[in-house]
Amino acid sequence: MEFSAQQIAAFLNGTVEGNPEVTVKSFSKIEEGKPGTLTFLANPKYEHYIYSTKASIVLVNNDFTPTEQIPATLIRVENAYAALAILLNMVEQHKQKQQTGIDSSAFIAPSASVGENCYIGHFAYVGKNTTIGKNCRIYPQAYIGDDVTIGDNCIIYPHVTIYDGCVIGNNNILHAGSVIGSDGFGFAPEGDLYKKIPQLGNVVLEDDVEIGANTTIDRAVMDSTIIHKGVKLDNLVQIAHNVEVGENTVMAAQVGVAGSTKIGKHCMFGGQVGLAGHIKITDHVNFGAQSGVISDIKEPTTVLGAPAIQAKAFMRSSAIFNRLPDMYRTMGQLQREIAELKKLINKE
Amino acid sequence: MEFSAQQIAAFLNGTVEGNPEVTVKSFSKIEEGKPGTLTFLANPKYEHYIYSTKASIVLVNNDFTPTEQIPATLIRVENAYAALAILLNMVEQHKQKQQTGIDSSAFIAPSASVGENCYIGHFAYVGKNTTIGKNCRIYPQAYIGDDVTIGDNCIIYPHVTIYDGCVIGNNNILHAGSVIGSDGFGFAPEGDLYKKIPQLGNVVLEDDVEIGANTTIDRAVMDSTIIHKGVKLDNLVQIAHNVEVGENTVMAAQVGVAGSTKIGKHCMFGGQVGLAGHIKITDHVNFGAQSGVISDIKEPTTVLGAPAIQAKAFMRSSAIFNRLPDMYRTMGQLQREIAELKKLINKE
Amino acid sequence: MEFSAQQIAAFLNGTVEGNPEVTVKSFSKIEEGKPGTLTFLANPKYEHYIYSTKASIVLVNNDFTPTEQIPATLIRVENAYAALAILLNMVEQHKQKQQTGIDSSAFIAPSASVGENCYIGHFAYVGKNTTIGKNCRIYPQAYIGDDVTIGDNCIIYPHVTIYDGCVIGNNNILHAGSVIGSDGFGFAPEGDLYKKIPQLGNVVLEDDVEIGANTTIDRAVMDSTIIHKGVKLDNLVQIAHNVEVGENTVMAAQVGVAGSTKIGKHCMFGGQVGLAGHIKITDHVNFGAQSGVISDIKEPTTVLGAPAIQAKAFMRSSAIFNRLPDMYRTMGQLQREIAELKKLINKE
Repeated sequence: MEFSAQQIAAFLNGTVEGNPEVTVKSFSKIEEGKPGTLTFLANPKYEHYIYSTKASIVLVNNDFTPTEQIPATLIRVENAYAALAILLNMVEQHKQKQQTGIDSSAFIAPSASVGENCYIGHFAYVGKNTTIGKNCRIYPQAYIGDDVTIGDNCIIYPHVTIYDGCVIGNNNILHAGSVIGSDGFGFAPEGDLYKKIPQLGNVVLEDDVEIGANTTIDRAVMDSTIIHKGVKLDNLVQIAHNVEVGENTVMAAQVGVAGSTKIGKHCMFGGQVGLAGHIKITDHVNFGAQSGVISDIKEPTTVLGAPAIQAKAFMRSSAIFNRLPDMYRTMGQLQREIAELKKLINKE
Repeated sequence: MEFSAQQIAAFLNGTVEGNPEVTVKSFSKIEEGKPGTLTFLANPKYEHYIYSTKASIVLVNNDFTPTEQIPATLIRVENAYAALAILLNMVEQHKQKQQTGIDSSAFIAPSASVGENCYIGHFAYVGKNTTIGKNCRIYPQAYIGDDVTIGDNCIIYPHVTIYDGCVIGNNNILHAGSVIGSDGFGFAPEGDLYKKIPQLGNVVLEDDVEIGANTTIDRAVMDSTIIHKGVKLDNLVQIAHNVEVGENTVMAAQVGVAGSTKIGKHCMFGGQVGLAGHIKITDHVNFGAQSGVISDIKEPTTVLGAPAIQAKAFMRSSAIFNRLPDMYRTMGQLQREIAELKKLINKE
Repeated sequence: MEFSAQQIAAFLNGTVEGNPEVTVKSFSKIEEGKPGTLTFLANPKYEHYIYSTKASIVLVNNDFTPTEQIPATLIRVENAYAALAILLNMVEQHKQKQQTGIDSSAFIAPSASVGENCYIGHFAYVGKNTTIGKNCRIYPQAYIGDDVTIGDNCIIYPHVTIYDGCVIGNNNILHAGSVIGSDGFGFAPEGDLYKKIPQLGNVVLEDDVEIGANTTIDRAVMDSTIIHKGVKLDNLVQIAHNVEVGENTVMAAQVGVAGSTKIGKHCMFGGQVGLAGHIKITDHVNFGAQSGVISDIKEPTTVLGAPAIQAKAFMRSSAIFNRLPDMYRTMGQLQREIAELKKLINKE
C-alpha cells in the first residue's frame, strides 16, 4: 500500500507543505529516515534532524516554525504524535490476525466458558469455572486458573499466569510472563521462624489496563489488590498485596509498591521508583525515576530522591552535594581565620 | 460456615468484650469492614478505624487500650496478627484442593520418580532421573529439568523453571515464573570480547523456603548457590551465582545480591536493596529499602542509603541534605563577614 | 576422570610448582577446597585462603608471589581465571547433551523451517513462517512467534517468549523466562486517558548475545530495538523500545534503560543502574551499581550516584555527606563566634 501526502493529510485533517504527490509505504525514525517513508517530529530535542532527514513526509505540529529549509514534505496537524498513533493503529488493524478458534492441544476445563470469537492457543490452560468474554486472544502456554473472570477483547500473551479467583476487566492486555495473583509476602514471626499468612484475597484489574512483561501483582490477604481503569504498568513492576492503583496512573519499568499502599488517579512514575507500604498518595503526583517514598503525599506535586522531596529542592541540594568537598575545605579555612582574628583582638 | 465470637475466642484462647453471640462468615480489612465479617488491629497506625469499623468482630492484642467507644465486639488475644494467621490457615485448609494424580498431557521422563499423593498438571515437564517427593503439587506448564531432586510437600506454580541438577528441600513454595538454576553471569574478558565461563554448579534450596513470582536464582560456577532453611524471598529478587543466604533471612521485592556474597541468618531486606559481590553480612542485619551495600557488615545493625551507613546517621545527614542550599548561602555570608572583620581590625 | 597436575599444566601451557603427580577429579572454591579438587586464585581478596586451602591444585597467575608456604600444588599460567574457563569448558562439552530431534508434543507450524541437528522440546511452540538455523536447542515450553528468524547454535531455555517478527543471530543464549519483543511502553495522552501507540517494530539480537533469566526487551515503535554483537545482559534487565546497546557491552542484573537511548560499545553496567530515555552514551563508559543517568555521556569514564557524576567525585562527596550533621553544628558555632567578634570590635 502506498499513500500520497495529500491522501494522508486529508485523512488526518492536516495541511500539506511541499509536494502533495510524494508517496510513502512505511514508517521511519527521523534520525534514520529513508525515502518512501513517513516520520514525525514531536520532541523538540530531535528538531535538528528534520533539516536533513531523508524521509519523504514528516508529520509536525501546527505551531512548528522551521529555522532552515526542509527537504521533506510536511503535514501539519494539531498533535503530530497523536496523528502518528492514528496511522500506526490503521496499519496494525490491517495486520492483525483474524485467527479464532481453540487449538487442538489447549486445555479448557469442562466447567469453563469461553465467549464467541476467541482464540486459545496450543498448550494454554483454562481452569474450572473460569469465564472468558468475547473476542479474547489467549496465546499459547498462557495459564488461567480456576474461578477466574476475564472480560471482552482481552489479549493474554504466552506464559502469563493468572492465579485462581482473579478478575480481569474488558480490553486488557497482559504481556508475556506477567503474574497476576501470586501470594502476597505475608509472614508472622514466630520465635526465630516466619509463619506464612495465607493470602485468601484476589487481584482485580478493571477495564483498559495494560500490564508489562514479567510484571507481578500479588493477591490480597483478604479482599482485593485493585488496579483501576486505564492503568498502564510497564515491565518488571512489582505491586504488593492490598495495594490500590488509581485510574489512569502509569508506571515505568521496575517500579515497586509495597503492601497496602493506596495510589491516586493520574499519577506518573519514572522507572525504578519504590514506595513504602501503608502510605497514601493523592491524585496527580509525579515521581522522578529511582525516587524512594516513605510517607503520605497529600498534594499534587513532583517528587525526586530517596527519601523523596520536591523535585526542584532535590535538584538544588543535589547540585551542592557535588561541591561538598569544597564546602568542607572552606569551612576549615573559616575556622582558622576566626581563630586568627580572635588572637589579633585579644592581643590589642 | 458461620462462627460466633464466643466460638472463635474459645478456639484462639481469647476473651470476648461485647456481644459474644454475634456471628461472622468472612474476613475484611479494618478500614473497609462490613457487618458479618471479622477483622483485626495489629498496626497502631490503623487504630482510628476501630472506632467506626462496621466489622462485627475485631481481634486485638491483650494490651490494647481503647480511647473511645468501639461498636464491634472485641476478641482479646496475645498476638492479634498471629491469631488472624491461625484463622486464615483454617479457612485455607478447608478450601485447599485435594486434587491428586497426573494430568494426561504432563510429560514425565520414564527415569523420573514421583512420590505418592502428588498432582502434576497439564503440559508440565519432568526431566530424566528427577525425583519428586510426596504430596507435591506441580502446576500446569512448570518445567523441572534433569537430575533434579524435590522434597515432600512442595508447591511449584505454573511457568516455574528448575534447571538441571538443582535440589529443592521439603515444604518449599515456588511462585509462578521463578527461575532456579539459570547460568551465573560469568565471563572472562578476552581482548575485546567476553568468553563465557561455564556454570557447572547448581542451586540448593533447603527446607521451608518460599520464592516469589519471577524471582531468579543463578547456579554456582562450581559447588552450589545456597538458600538456607526458612528463607523467604519476595517477587523479582535476583540472587547471583555462589551466593549463600542464611536461615530465616527475608527479602522484600526487587532486591539484588551480586556474586559470591554470603548473608547471615535472620537478616531483613527492604525492597530494591542492592548488595555488591564478594562481601559478608553477619546475622541479624536489617537493610532499609533501596540501600546499596559495598562492604562487609560485621555487627547486627540497621543500615540505609547508598553507600549504606547506620540508618540513624543516614536519616540525620539526609535531613541536612535538604538544607544544603541554605548552608551554602550561609557559608558565603560568613566568608564576607570575616573579610569585613579583617578589614576593620587592620584599619585600627 | 582424573588428571594429574602435570597433565593439566601441559594442557594449559603452565608450569607446576609442587608435586606434579597429584591428581584431581573436580573443582572447588578456594575457601572450601577439598582434597582431590582443583581451585584457582584470581581475586587478591581471596589470597589468604591459599595458605590453608585443602584443594590439591591451585591455578595462579604467573606473577603471584606467595608470602607464606602453600600446602597445595600450584600451576602457574598467564591468566588463572581464563585458564579455569578453559577447563570448565572442557568439562561442560563432555557433559553436554547430544539430544536432537523434535519431541512428539512440540508444535511447529507447517510453514516454519527448522535446520539440521536441532532439538525442540515438549510443549514448545514455533509459529508461522519462522526459520530456525542449525544446531539449536529449543527447550520445552519455549514460545517462538510468527515470522521470527533464529540463527545457528542458539539455546532457548524454557518459558522464553519471542514475539512475532523478531530476529535472533547466531550463538545466542536466552535464559528461562526472558521476553523478546513485548510492546514498548508508548501511550499518547488523550484528555484524561492514555491511548496506546501500536508498536510495529521488532527486536534484533545480533550474534553471540546472552540474555539473562526474566530479562525483558521491548520491540520498537517502528524500526528495531537493537542488541549488538557480543552483548551480555544479566537477569531481570529491562531494555525499552528503540534502545540500541553497542557491541560487547555488559549489564549486571536489574539494570533499566528507558526508550530511545543509545549505548556505545564496551560499556560495563553494575546492578540496578537506571538510564533515562533519549540519551546517548559513548563507548567504554562504566556505571557503578545503582547509578541514575539523566544526560549524555561523551567521554569514556566511570560514573556513580543519582544523578550520576564522576565516581571519584561521588565517593568524595559521599564521605562528607556522612559528616553533614557535624558540619551543620560547626557552621552554627562559626556564626556565633563571628557575632561575638563583631561585638568585641564594636565595643573598642
